[in-house]
Amino acid sequence: MKYCQHCAGPITHHIPPGDDKLRYCCTACNVVFYQNPNNIVGTLPIYEDKVLLCKRAIEPRYGKWTLPAGFMENGETTLQGAIRETAEEAGAVVLAEDCSLYTLFNLPYINQVYLFFHTQLRSLDFNPGEESLEVALFSEAEIPWSELAFPVVRITLEQYFADRRQSVFPVRMFDLHYSAERQLSTFLVSSSNKSS
Amino acid sequence: MKYCQHCAGPITHHIPPGDDKLRYCCTACNVVFYQNPNNIVGTLPIYEDKVLLCKRAIEPRYGKWTLPAGFMENGETTLQGAIRETAEEAGAVVLAEDCSLYTLFNLPYINQVYLFFHTQLRSLDFNPGEESLEVALFSEAEIPWSELAFPVVRITLEQYFADRRQSVFPVRMFDLHYSAERQLSTFLVSSSNKSS
Repeated sequence: MKYCQHCAGPITHHIPPGDDKLRYCCTACNVVFYQNPNNIVGTLPIYEDKVLLCKRAIEPRYGKWTLPAGFMENGETTLQGAIRETAEEAGAVVLAEDCSLYTLFNLPYINQVYLFFHTQLRSLDFNPGEESLEVALFSEAEIPWSELAFPVVRITLEQYFADRRQSVFPVRMFDLHYSAERQLSTFLVSSSNKSS
Repeated sequence: MKYCQHCAGPITHHIPPGDDKLRYCCTACNVVFYQNPNNIVGTLPIYEDKVLLCKRAIEPRYGKWTLPAGFMENGETTLQGAIRETAEEAGAVVLAEDCSLYTLFNLPYINQVYLFFHTQLRSLDFNPGEESLEVALFSEAEIPWSELAFPVVRITLEQYFADRRQSVFPVRMFDLHYSAERQLSTFLVSSSNKSS
């Protein structure tokens, strides 16, 4: 960020008075530009004993399999965004009244929060959108575990198959962190299964 | 948004090729500036049978009572943000290991998502920060229902006192919508209490 979007004045990166964090600030009109995390919203679409996955036609992770998900947009709810992304990426329809919040992931190293909703596919009528090479249903034994695009997809699928054996689907929140050696750690922070 | 933050070129508001939504776009360098919802993160801090509330020292809703909450910042998790806001607004310490995701609210009319964590106060050592006039503990009978700052605070408190009678605290997601007549409607969209 080099120029002010209001007055085209030069931007500096400093801690404004009364704040304790570095911000982009206009040296001409003094406006402070805050930057905040983005939400990525998606679904875990189920049909009988199978899960719908999309093969990515875009970077990052071109050619890897993922759950349908994307950036939440202004003017929509988390669930509306998840349903929209499922339609866009998988050409698939899920029913809003079947959707339950299922997993939430904090990825502070890239300023993202992922939210997945557990839901049922309305029919076998699906087809890849522009961002997908292929869309397919996978049973637990068929999941391409080594070809999944993101850790949040792997963890959501692992939880789902484990929860399905108990027929209980708690809402869980995880934190993901990378060590200095680029080693990923996952922490379960909160689960609705515990009464407290 | 009038000027490009990268090149100071003039910004227009139009639908870019391959998109279906109005975006701010630079007419000189063609960068598209996406705008996305913000997360507001806070806590429901409990001490014995009481809830901690803060009296707002800032607009909007100056002088009204609220749960400690504020904008999630880059580089932190939702829970880290909620704990930070509780320290900043109420001078109060809650223990991360006691915190459970409790309510999530979609407010699409102002592009916000609220997340509250249910937690326990570590001690009676609290005091108002710069954004609070007063911080106090309230039993259910003492809650100033007509003096609460925001609907998300009222709903979270109502759920808490109802859930406490059952000793079960499901994770619930609500959508808030305003009608053309500025009438607020609240919809329970998802609850972890249901097995599905």
